[in-house]
Amino acid sequence: MRMAELSRESGVPVPTIKYYLREGILPPGERTSPNQARYDQSHVRRLKLVKAMLDVGGLSIADVHRMVAAIEQRTPTHDLLGITQQGLPRPEGGDDSRLAAARRRAEAVIEERAWKVEPDCPAATALAGVLATFAELGQPESGPWLSRLAEAADIVAEADLDSLSGVADTEAIIERALVGTVLGDTLFAVLRRLAQQNVSAARFGGR
Amino acid sequence: MRMAELSRESGVPVPTIKYYLREGILPPGERTSPNQARYDQSHVRRLKLVKAMLDVGGLSIADVHRMVAAIEQRTPTHDLLGITQQGLPRPEGGDDSRLAAARRRAEAVIEERAWKVEPDCPAATALAGVLATFAELGQPESGPWLSRLAEAADIVAEADLDSLSGVADTEAIIERALVGTVLGDTLFAVLRRLAQQNVSAARFGGR
Repeated sequence: MRMAELSRESGVPVPTIKYYLREGILPPGERTSPNQARYDQSHVRRLKLVKAMLDVGGLSIADVHRMVAAIEQRTPTHDLLGITQQGLPRPEGGDDSRLAAARRRAEAVIEERAWKVEPDCPAATALAGVLATFAELGQPESGPWLSRLAEAADIVAEADLDSLSGVADTEAIIERALVGTVLGDTLFAVLRRLAQQNVSAARFGGR
Repeated sequence: MRMAELSRESGVPVPTIKYYLREGILPPGERTSPNQARYDQSHVRRLKLVKAMLDVGGLSIADVHRMVAAIEQRTPTHDLLGITQQGLPRPEGGDDSRLAAARRRAEAVIEERAWKVEPDCPAATALAGVLATFAELGQPESGPWLSRLAEAADIVAEADLDSLSGVADTEAIIERALVGTVLGDTLFAVLRRLAQQNVSAARFGGR
């Protein structure tokens, strides 16, 4: 198909498609003349993926770059978590003593759940950063709250990994892992709001 | 304190502070001359809150506007969930039949958990939208996966509401509810990555 049709099928405007082509986010089409190229369903698929990551997953263009590279280099599933962690916030977390205290609390959670992770991996650092931000705002997180969230995270992670098994094709696994993680964060946030509304109505009465 | 000191204490650059003042995100200081104003710790506190919401919470300026309005109007806790829901994605979700099918799956989850929520509330609509996006990408979410995420959301929501009890001051409750929800989404995403790494290492072996 021509670019105009690609735009119609994917719902992505032509100037945006051209930008993605320049940036290498969309692979080039098959050239049919010096000024024209032909695109196929793989291009439609890629554009829909990029659109969903940006609109629903809330990723930046830089994150999308990394994701596309992971798909094209057929990064092994095991290493994908590293890529989806690139999108994690790297908060400054205020002064050093606050960050050091937050790092100790992060380590305590990891130990409590017996999570086998490197203590200085990006996710552990991000955890310390988020906890430092709570402290910075004068609202230190409560220990029991954090423990229950970590417990729920274990349930979710088991379910996440289960949902990857049974997918055969490498590219499909990679796409599914990325989509599942990125959209999965949004999905969980939405479910959490629904559950909060339910608990809130039960406790405070309500609309 | 003067604006230069406010900038140092909060870590927010002067031009950004001026922008927040113009936008009403930061309340004006006490005027001491036609060109000068004095600021206090409440301004430092507000700036840190806004910075955290943007940097760590991933909110847009429009979301921050709504949050600040909620704090200043002392919105009752019960209605706060409505505000934090404004930040939810409103995906288009492709064609209508896909969205209708996603809406039925969303209703089934709500029914399964016996959540007492309005079927057309923003969170329920957002849930249908996210599910429609999965389908749009050719990766329909699996029923068991969704059920387990919803189960975990219940654990998290109970913990969230518990952490609000015992806070006395209205403005403090509002701030805590907002911070807890917005930063709480980031916190959970980070915990989920850690748990995933742990489960992934146990199943596939690895780093």
